[in-house]
Amino acid sequence: MSTDAHASVLTPSEALPENAVHVKGPDLSKPIDLQDLLKSYETIGFQATGLARAIQVVEEMRKQRSNPDEPLTLFLGYTSNLISSGLREIIKFLAQHKLIDCLVTTAGGVEEDFIKCLGSTVLGEFHLDGAGLRKRGLNRIGNLLVPNSNYCAFEDWVVPILDQMVKEQEEDGTKWSPSSVINRLGKEIDNEESVYYWCYKNDIPVFCPALTDGSLGDMIYFHTYKSSPLQLNIDIVADIRRLNDMSVKSKKAGMIILGGGVCKHQIANAMLFRNGADYAVYINTGQEYDGSDSGARPDEAVSWGKIRAGAESVKVYADATLVFPLVVAATFGKAHWEDSQAEKKNSE
Amino acid sequence: MSTDAHASVLTPSEALPENAVHVKGPDLSKPIDLQDLLKSYETIGFQATGLARAIQVVEEMRKQRSNPDEPLTLFLGYTSNLISSGLREIIKFLAQHKLIDCLVTTAGGVEEDFIKCLGSTVLGEFHLDGAGLRKRGLNRIGNLLVPNSNYCAFEDWVVPILDQMVKEQEEDGTKWSPSSVINRLGKEIDNEESVYYWCYKNDIPVFCPALTDGSLGDMIYFHTYKSSPLQLNIDIVADIRRLNDMSVKSKKAGMIILGGGVCKHQIANAMLFRNGADYAVYINTGQEYDGSDSGARPDEAVSWGKIRAGAESVKVYADATLVFPLVVAATFGKAHWEDSQAEKKNSE
Amino acid sequence: MSTDAHASVLTPSEALPENAVHVKGPDLSKPIDLQDLLKSYETIGFQATGLARAIQVVEEMRKQRSNPDEPLTLFLGYTSNLISSGLREIIKFLAQHKLIDCLVTTAGGVEEDFIKCLGSTVLGEFHLDGAGLRKRGLNRIGNLLVPNSNYCAFEDWVVPILDQMVKEQEEDGTKWSPSSVINRLGKEIDNEESVYYWCYKNDIPVFCPALTDGSLGDMIYFHTYKSSPLQLNIDIVADIRRLNDMSVKSKKAGMIILGGGVCKHQIANAMLFRNGADYAVYINTGQEYDGSDSGARPDEAVSWGKIRAGAESVKVYADATLVFPLVVAATFGKAHWEDSQAEKKNSE
Amino acid sequence: MSTDAHASVLTPSEALPENAVHVKGPDLSKPIDLQDLLKSYETIGFQATGLARAIQVVEEMRKQRSNPDEPLTLFLGYTSNLISSGLREIIKFLAQHKLIDCLVTTAGGVEEDFIKCLGSTVLGEFHLDGAGLRKRGLNRIGNLLVPNSNYCAFEDWVVPILDQMVKEQEEDGTKWSPSSVINRLGKEIDNEESVYYWCYKNDIPVFCPALTDGSLGDMIYFHTYKSSPLQLNIDIVADIRRLNDMSVKSKKAGMIILGGGVCKHQIANAMLFRNGADYAVYINTGQEYDGSDSGARPDEAVSWGKIRAGAESVKVYADATLVFPLVVAATFGKAHWEDSQAEKKNSE
Repeated sequence: MSTDAHASVLTPSEALPENAVHVKGPDLSKPIDLQDLLKSYETIGFQATGLARAIQVVEEMRKQRSNPDEPLTLFLGYTSNLISSGLREIIKFLAQHKLIDCLVTTAGGVEEDFIKCLGSTVLGEFHLDGAGLRKRGLNRIGNLLVPNSNYCAFEDWVVPILDQMVKEQEEDGTKWSPSSVINRLGKEIDNEESVYYWCYKNDIPVFCPALTDGSLGDMIYFHTYKSSPLQLNIDIVADIRRLNDMSVKSKKAGMIILGGGVCKHQIANAMLFRNGADYAVYINTGQEYDGSDSGARPDEAVSWGKIRAGAESVKVYADATLVFPLVVAATFGKAHWEDSQAEKKNSE
Repeated sequence: MSTDAHASVLTPSEALPENAVHVKGPDLSKPIDLQDLLKSYETIGFQATGLARAIQVVEEMRKQRSNPDEPLTLFLGYTSNLISSGLREIIKFLAQHKLIDCLVTTAGGVEEDFIKCLGSTVLGEFHLDGAGLRKRGLNRIGNLLVPNSNYCAFEDWVVPILDQMVKEQEEDGTKWSPSSVINRLGKEIDNEESVYYWCYKNDIPVFCPALTDGSLGDMIYFHTYKSSPLQLNIDIVADIRRLNDMSVKSKKAGMIILGGGVCKHQIANAMLFRNGADYAVYINTGQEYDGSDSGARPDEAVSWGKIRAGAESVKVYADATLVFPLVVAATFGKAHWEDSQAEKKNSE
Repeated sequence: MSTDAHASVLTPSEALPENAVHVKGPDLSKPIDLQDLLKSYETIGFQATGLARAIQVVEEMRKQRSNPDEPLTLFLGYTSNLISSGLREIIKFLAQHKLIDCLVTTAGGVEEDFIKCLGSTVLGEFHLDGAGLRKRGLNRIGNLLVPNSNYCAFEDWVVPILDQMVKEQEEDGTKWSPSSVINRLGKEIDNEESVYYWCYKNDIPVFCPALTDGSLGDMIYFHTYKSSPLQLNIDIVADIRRLNDMSVKSKKAGMIILGGGVCKHQIANAMLFRNGADYAVYINTGQEYDGSDSGARPDEAVSWGKIRAGAESVKVYADATLVFPLVVAATFGKAHWEDSQAEKKNSE
Repeated sequence: MSTDAHASVLTPSEALPENAVHVKGPDLSKPIDLQDLLKSYETIGFQATGLARAIQVVEEMRKQRSNPDEPLTLFLGYTSNLISSGLREIIKFLAQHKLIDCLVTTAGGVEEDFIKCLGSTVLGEFHLDGAGLRKRGLNRIGNLLVPNSNYCAFEDWVVPILDQMVKEQEEDGTKWSPSSVINRLGKEIDNEESVYYWCYKNDIPVFCPALTDGSLGDMIYFHTYKSSPLQLNIDIVADIRRLNDMSVKSKKAGMIILGGGVCKHQIANAMLFRNGADYAVYINTGQEYDGSDSGARPDEAVSWGKIRAGAESVKVYADATLVFPLVVAATFGKAHWEDSQAEKKNSE
């Protein structure tokens, strides 16, 4: 064997910088609480380190929201299925306590919140037979099931509201856009379980340009026949102006985006108008190799000016249901609990 | 060692059914042409078998389109990035020769087609530095690059059209919807390289509910200030009625969906109104484990009634750029070449 | 519009079973501790529910290990990179406290544990330039970096041991197998930070059939020239007998497998000899569509008899660094803390 | 709206370099043959461009194999499941015509080749019920099925060979290693359908350090009881020396690796001893985010010195069954057909 072979395997290495961070996992031989366990993720590597970084970036966004000079505007995007999941309650927590400033989602991300006020979504399995479920009137979303009866209840609830909306359009000249429709529905649902009830209450705009791409679209479709020759008009131009204006007017801007598709692109696109977001956290399972925006890393957004060069950003490669509860518990949750406790003490 | 261990490893097996298909790859020791090579995929297994099946299902859809009794309506969905890629030319081929009946895409899937008539998209690398690209005015889409100058050219082209559209809205009472905007732009581009030029020429509707979620949205946003106090109105209700009506009126319906997000869900949702598609081919890289619609298998759509129970369906797990050229070459392409040759002979 | 369209969208649904589990997320408006937060994952859906189920199955395995009648033998498999990550400390915790019965890994999963006793692995980034790192003598593993000097230190440490092993082979007739080599190295390292030190101390066999596929193989390769004409012999037949015998003799058997490849297949294959594992938890990012064993769901293993039909099993689709600390904290960790506390109280 | 917003969206771009490659897809309106279609992939983008690049790199490796000065040694790695698939026939083509120099695989990648000489693997579905298959004695590999009877036939065939191998070990002092076992089985199978028959005939070494991790290991395990107190010894040290020596002695070296795990790492690791491979093509579905070697990009291997800095390398993100037939048809296949035709003409 040549000494070359030996040399090429074991070329010398330069000294590590002094601030190099050593990889080390948590010590589970002693009790460790949630915050400390998540703190330990910083030095585990791979996606654990990614999650720890997401927590740091979200915590920074949280703090910057109350920066008196340059308050940060926080945009949260999420796909439809996350409202179907139990992340809905976490998003509701954020909306209820005014911890976010703007939401962007797709149609199911709107309607499933209302539908859950009318009937339950339940656990199923990923591999239940589709034809069998169809016969039973159960619709599958991953490992969740939504009975058709929920959609019937939704129809009963929403049709009178649509009637009224058409009336206002015709009589009062009301111009509807997806965000104003969602606001109205949030008011009508009048239910503290609802994400969009709180958005209505707290003046948090919710954007959803493809609002008709789901059950609400089905209802609106049917309704065009019912209301004929009148027809509801939902204008997407008003909303793109409203969203982009929010971006322009933000002193600082941050985005948290769960999943891909329109909810990811729409927020990032709005950031163009302010020369890029200052902070960005992506949590999704998409991959960049197919060239989709859904799978694109934050650095692709930097090339477009959607994220500012040098901004704090991270992508966590995971299903958001695994990760987002931890992220919120370690940031907005923790701060809220501490505030509540402080208030309690003060009032004693 | 117990004989139990032996028995449990080698439990007897029942005889295979006579029609069992034996796994076997192509013989590459002899010349093989494209069609035969793709035919050999039927028995390779894994996604090769999936691709072969996709070819069979698309070929069946192709044939059923000209079924005199129950002509099939073919819906094609695709994400924005695929128009950025060279699949644009394949989609153009389908539109030009009237081989599809309806397109659904997202904003970039519309505007990038027009932009390519004004400037080139070029090859790059997935790992080019975002900040460096930003300085150079180059926007990255996977391993593709689009210069900012293309978007400037797009603005120059589209603003006068937007002016005109607002004028028609105000003066003639024209009511715009995403599909009518796209139709108009297809007419204006007047360029045989364009997908939407051919859709305009061939009366193929193109749906894009989130039309404002991209560069066209940027231009429309700017334009709201230019045209103020007038403002373009783009109504998504008219389009959901138009799309769902197409589904209802189809004798048979098939869908080919490249990628996920709105372009996938919107077509599948429209199929609800006819109790499900008769054929479905999905080509994407999404996975079902995060519960997203993007990653959902065809069988999830069966539970909803978006695909008919018993319909021919397949999902090919791959980037569409790898697979779709092969699918089209083996179906619409092949038939087109045979027709052309037959015509040529007849005319001799 | 036909009433058919309406009917097909809203077919009636059967009543949900009374024990249907309603999807609901945690209430983060009030303080929630680690165990309760993970408990809440049961009803979040998607992979959150998968993680909650993994915790249940691991907890059941943990309890069954001390079942006096049919004690469960627990097999833990993991890929090389997880020893490079901070999961090493968690695996060490399991080995140190005799909470597992058998380990299976690949070469890096062995040597990186020893190497970490000799030099640090540090945090890096996924997108550091390979050529630049090569010049600096830094080897990248995902977002981790290992300096070449660590491998030099490993060589200095291991060569004298290899000398001695050859000597024992020649003089005492010692027959080496991967597991006996690992045991010997665990003894020699004599360091409480090491996973394999504890395996040696606690008589936990560690299997690694491809032991030469890494740095240890490099050292052994060089050593064949140094020791020539003598040559170390490492026999894999002895180990397959030892591993499969362990499976056969287990009253109950459970497996936890982090990642894919040989560490996954080797454990599952051993389960054949007892007609399948009774419990199985897979945590990995592999997908089934490419037909790889790495991506295969537990149900594929059921077809082979590697998992018993009806066994408790789950696959969590995630990078193990995100999930495994939570799983262990909620099972073995929690129980260990409670035991420690109970002991402490008793001793007071 | 500020003019800043406008400026930030449409920053100027520098002129594209003259050699920028414009994205464009194939023209399917005219007949296109296999080679031209694949050539068109160069400018499609995303993974289509990756495939075109893989074809270029493999073609370069093919040519360099017959470079008289610095002939390239070509290492091909593949996972077990690909021998189960129809890629087996393609690998056989390469071995039969001496188009590769070295193979590395895992246990199933060895035994399934022999088993296919004894019984068929047939097409199934990814979602067949595991418990039902178990009852029927059918083992699932993705969407393929292997009847238990095949493994019984394998046992009948292999046990006498194992008897003989133990005899030679004891009587002739034969020292077995995985590669010599595979060579012997290749000789014994004496079947032109077999990959390893041709490797035996053509002196192509086949490495498989974890040879016992599969059905052959099962048979060897049973055989240790049959042959007791004698026991076959299979030494992995001899093979790591043989493989690394091949790397050291190669003037140039290239690697094609289908899938991940040991077959990927083992070849790449051997490249260390020559300061890196000169060419590398990876085809797999793994992702880098979990830090696994399986998902690592070529650039990670550059940091280790497993691929030479500046080497031609590409990773195609796809199931190999989709891609590898195209790669071989466009390189080794094409050249072979042209050679055959040239020979035929010469002989006329």
